[in-house]
Amino acid sequence: MPIRTAIIGPTGYTGYHLIDTLSRHPSAELTYLASHRDELPDIREVFPALLGRVDDDLAICRPIDPEAVADEADVVFLALPHRAAMSYAPKLLDAGLRVIDLSADYRLADAALYERTYDHPHADPDNLAEAVYGLPELNRDQLPGAMLVANPGCYPTAAALAVAPLLSHSLVKHDPIIINAASGTTGAGKKASDLLHFPNHNESYLPYGVIGGHRHQPEIEQTLSTVAGKLIHTLFVPHLLPIDRGILETIYLEPTGPDVTEDELYEAYEATYADEPFVRVREGLPNVKDVAGTNFCDITVRLTKQGDRPTVVVFSAIDNMIKGAAGQAVQNMNAVFDLDETAGLL
Amino acid sequence: MPIRTAIIGPTGYTGYHLIDTLSRHPSAELTYLASHRDELPDIREVFPALLGRVDDDLAICRPIDPEAVADEADVVFLALPHRAAMSYAPKLLDAGLRVIDLSADYRLADAALYERTYDHPHADPDNLAEAVYGLPELNRDQLPGAMLVANPGCYPTAAALAVAPLLSHSLVKHDPIIINAASGTTGAGKKASDLLHFPNHNESYLPYGVIGGHRHQPEIEQTLSTVAGKLIHTLFVPHLLPIDRGILETIYLEPTGPDVTEDELYEAYEATYADEPFVRVREGLPNVKDVAGTNFCDITVRLTKQGDRPTVVVFSAIDNMIKGAAGQAVQNMNAVFDLDETAGLL
Amino acid sequence: MPIRTAIIGPTGYTGYHLIDTLSRHPSAELTYLASHRDELPDIREVFPALLGRVDDDLAICRPIDPEAVADEADVVFLALPHRAAMSYAPKLLDAGLRVIDLSADYRLADAALYERTYDHPHADPDNLAEAVYGLPELNRDQLPGAMLVANPGCYPTAAALAVAPLLSHSLVKHDPIIINAASGTTGAGKKASDLLHFPNHNESYLPYGVIGGHRHQPEIEQTLSTVAGKLIHTLFVPHLLPIDRGILETIYLEPTGPDVTEDELYEAYEATYADEPFVRVREGLPNVKDVAGTNFCDITVRLTKQGDRPTVVVFSAIDNMIKGAAGQAVQNMNAVFDLDETAGLL
Amino acid sequence: MPIRTAIIGPTGYTGYHLIDTLSRHPSAELTYLASHRDELPDIREVFPALLGRVDDDLAICRPIDPEAVADEADVVFLALPHRAAMSYAPKLLDAGLRVIDLSADYRLADAALYERTYDHPHADPDNLAEAVYGLPELNRDQLPGAMLVANPGCYPTAAALAVAPLLSHSLVKHDPIIINAASGTTGAGKKASDLLHFPNHNESYLPYGVIGGHRHQPEIEQTLSTVAGKLIHTLFVPHLLPIDRGILETIYLEPTGPDVTEDELYEAYEATYADEPFVRVREGLPNVKDVAGTNFCDITVRLTKQGDRPTVVVFSAIDNMIKGAAGQAVQNMNAVFDLDETAGLL
Repeated sequence: MPIRTAIIGPTGYTGYHLIDTLSRHPSAELTYLASHRDELPDIREVFPALLGRVDDDLAICRPIDPEAVADEADVVFLALPHRAAMSYAPKLLDAGLRVIDLSADYRLADAALYERTYDHPHADPDNLAEAVYGLPELNRDQLPGAMLVANPGCYPTAAALAVAPLLSHSLVKHDPIIINAASGTTGAGKKASDLLHFPNHNESYLPYGVIGGHRHQPEIEQTLSTVAGKLIHTLFVPHLLPIDRGILETIYLEPTGPDVTEDELYEAYEATYADEPFVRVREGLPNVKDVAGTNFCDITVRLTKQGDRPTVVVFSAIDNMIKGAAGQAVQNMNAVFDLDETAGLL
Repeated sequence: MPIRTAIIGPTGYTGYHLIDTLSRHPSAELTYLASHRDELPDIREVFPALLGRVDDDLAICRPIDPEAVADEADVVFLALPHRAAMSYAPKLLDAGLRVIDLSADYRLADAALYERTYDHPHADPDNLAEAVYGLPELNRDQLPGAMLVANPGCYPTAAALAVAPLLSHSLVKHDPIIINAASGTTGAGKKASDLLHFPNHNESYLPYGVIGGHRHQPEIEQTLSTVAGKLIHTLFVPHLLPIDRGILETIYLEPTGPDVTEDELYEAYEATYADEPFVRVREGLPNVKDVAGTNFCDITVRLTKQGDRPTVVVFSAIDNMIKGAAGQAVQNMNAVFDLDETAGLL
Repeated sequence: MPIRTAIIGPTGYTGYHLIDTLSRHPSAELTYLASHRDELPDIREVFPALLGRVDDDLAICRPIDPEAVADEADVVFLALPHRAAMSYAPKLLDAGLRVIDLSADYRLADAALYERTYDHPHADPDNLAEAVYGLPELNRDQLPGAMLVANPGCYPTAAALAVAPLLSHSLVKHDPIIINAASGTTGAGKKASDLLHFPNHNESYLPYGVIGGHRHQPEIEQTLSTVAGKLIHTLFVPHLLPIDRGILETIYLEPTGPDVTEDELYEAYEATYADEPFVRVREGLPNVKDVAGTNFCDITVRLTKQGDRPTVVVFSAIDNMIKGAAGQAVQNMNAVFDLDETAGLL
Repeated sequence: MPIRTAIIGPTGYTGYHLIDTLSRHPSAELTYLASHRDELPDIREVFPALLGRVDDDLAICRPIDPEAVADEADVVFLALPHRAAMSYAPKLLDAGLRVIDLSADYRLADAALYERTYDHPHADPDNLAEAVYGLPELNRDQLPGAMLVANPGCYPTAAALAVAPLLSHSLVKHDPIIINAASGTTGAGKKASDLLHFPNHNESYLPYGVIGGHRHQPEIEQTLSTVAGKLIHTLFVPHLLPIDRGILETIYLEPTGPDVTEDELYEAYEATYADEPFVRVREGLPNVKDVAGTNFCDITVRLTKQGDRPTVVVFSAIDNMIKGAAGQAVQNMNAVFDLDETAGLL
């Protein structure tokens, strides 16, 4: 019997990709779309690309009624903005649903850090304590049977997968870790803005946000600190690309000693990811285009030396909408329900 | 002594290109920027690309005060939305200024047609009667000394230059003239919209608007009817390209008889445009990229036959922001003041 | 038991999309990749996007050995250039394989027309006589059990689906049918060229080829003439877009009489396509982006009038790589093997 | 009397921008185009955008004849590949011409370093010793009257302008300087390649080349070492953007002490560049689009802290074709001939 799935907040880009992925999934079916908009939208009017792929009775969104959702679904994907997510999650959990939250609300384990980062208190600290951070490659064992999964951010996914093996193998120092990141525009969401007005952003490339103060930085540091067993600081500098999708992070680290070799770096990745279906450790340089539309994370590492000083440069590429959002959410669902993690994703 | 110029409404893309062009013009100087915004903008904050190119005293826009403008300028470019333009033009003319209006307000000679097209009455029929339609290649002789110039629309410029020689040489029938047009996004203006949100429009191509009912259609027909000496109907179908600038129109016409040759078509263009500095009649196929950033209109014609039926296909390319707006406005200014028409434009 | 499939010539964009589609197909498996290159490529080096999706033993292409292919496959997709395709097809058919040819070699039923269009004689007239033109929406009944399927060209697919219902319902005159087409760049193939060098083609839009003489024109006319039961002439004018994928055709036709209504036009489409899973007759205007990555053909029709003269404008959008190539090829395979036509394609 | 200028090697993108800039220059005229191609090209066929802008007698390139060039020109721009440039420069200098070389041949003062970097010996060490490195903002005083100017590379221009003030004011340590760079595609030249085939590179973003070993790295280090008065090492990591033009470098440095403030950083820039017409020190974050088509370099600096560790992040943006090539070459010409450096460039 297929897993019955619901999406709350399907009208954003993440929602679109959840629908797209779930409607191809061999062991899941999509049964419920719920919107918090007053005027309940037909998802096919929001995304004409879904015409002919979503049936009438599914396409017209319904209100967010936890009991009704629970009648028709086993698991619900929350594709709401942060803050809205944690206002619905407790009710959905109470109704017996498993919840995979794609917002930031359950990613930071420390409610005080959440408050500092998002400028308002956490509304659901009880469930926060139970939430599993859903990065299967690093903490797969917590996922089977989990009730609440916090789906990682896009930038943190690419960063954590790239740096964790180097830290766990003690090949790099923890400070400083410089993460120069570049993202496609779907990451900024669906709301029209001057910044992303086509004639403004086309043929463009720019840093954005508060340099060194992006909200994804604490999430990256939380994951890496856990891996390293000590506090890790990062300098995270995001840039915006004139493309739809894809993140590439270029990460600069200092090796622990002068005799670390590039081979050792690769061995650390191989040891960590040899059996991972979605991490491709590559010798050639990655390209966001190679991962676009896929759930893969491509990682390449180089050891280089300037004068006497060696530096490790890691490149990590994902599709921000797939491995950075909807694909990873489905991978998490697969893990929660003990399916093959690749189901619906290859 | 340089011509002193003012721009009213400089915060749109057209305003930007007027500033860019006028600040390079050898015989003009820009003395006044006026905005109808309540909070008067610094144009360098609106367009950081202008940093270092516009002095402090010019950069901060001033209110629209016709007398004050007239104290400092000889000619004013109106880069306002239609309707706003005709609310200011009479006062500016009364203050003794020459006016070059880049809106649609003075393009249609018939006030009733204006009302049907723009859904409200024309507010300034007296000046409308005096306005010169500023397409120098077709009516240059009316420009010297003109007080009010209606700068043509972007689509009509490309269409009129492409079709006029064929009509005036009686080489094509008047019905039907099918104009399949494609435009870059700057033509849609600077206001953010869902349609032009980058991740929506990137990698996109689509028809838009009311097919066969675009507001530029009456303007095209007015110009062509004047040239032909009889009523001309066109079917105008615009599309939107995922690029910043440029229009390419592919125009389908029926030759007047079976013995019209491609050479004759080219001869008509040569006879009309041999001395025109901004019309390039080409044998090779045009590309919007070849005219981007220039005041040129590139025209190529082909005669083709399907079965027994010959068709004339004309391609016409301009930069919608230059020959389709700011560049042509400056060309008109040059003509009004008896300068070389190419001044500042090559 | 799954259908065993082979691809000959997998190193082009079409080959990539065949691999991508077939590796997701629930009832097919990909068993053989064969290349005519001297140095047999690893498909994952050609397309790093396929890393982790294609096993070692499949990835390294093998020579084109019809018997060996027949040992491991039931059906072979020919993704070779025209001319090469018909040199291999007879041997593959002789070896007992079903063949779905994505080249132009078996599309034109008349060998003499083939010779005029492609400038060399047809090398396999016997099989040409047996080939089924694989446009399921128009000739589905010929597909089950077919040994040789000619997969239609991308432009002809979009054109035929758009115009056929109007001709079969006698709603439009046959002459002239003007097809103004625009395509993404994958249609031009994978070989680097000056025309498609990124800094030449980016921010570009241009007509190309011999106007009115593109090789797809006879194919379009063949299909439409069959539907109409009389000789149909078209004027086909292709343009190149600065995007990866997608075709949008804007088609101009004359209605058979002054009392044809837009409703009647839509009724013709509904009558033809009501049960078609891959044709979406839409009221809203289509966009190549809505069909990108899908096997859908989106069609919208408008009836417009200039003066007394009515014109029918049809818009037809497909993904040139999917419905215009690899997706339709798999749809044809599904039809040949009596599978649900949508298998692997939704 | 205008300066008479010649271009050798005008058929690349740099040549195009030299023609474009020089044909607008108020005090220079372009008199000679010379090509080393066997079949002498008409520059208007190479660049249709130049139709109507270049006269017949100039447009058809002539052979590279130093005496003939010297008869008609005062200064010659060498827009040849490296290695070819130094084979012509001596003869052009002997003929009495001033030479502005846009290749890499005279940029590295040390012939041995040149040989290590470019894999072949320097062919003209005598003139190398006399060449002036033409970065006017840093060594303007050497330019007036110079016979041979080495025009800097695009990446080195952006890097040197961004870092020099921090080094000269002793605000940053010299090691390590991490330069994360991203460039538009015109920097890769006009020759078609698989990498830059449109459907390969569109929607793409990737690192390229030998990480930490790009040929521009020694040039950057040479300039910065001169400014600092000691050996400077950099780690330079270039990426390729899916846009035509523009470079943005994100540079990471360690401040000399914990009490360096962001204000001090800005004061260093102001002290260095207050009177520079082409350097815009900005508080807002830069964007390659703001400098596209201009000779400006936009610089923004941020001081950020991770844990206790402060980092300086500098952003530097130029148009690789203008300030990074043709524009700076004309700026150098202006300086050599004691013209206002901005002539023809604002």
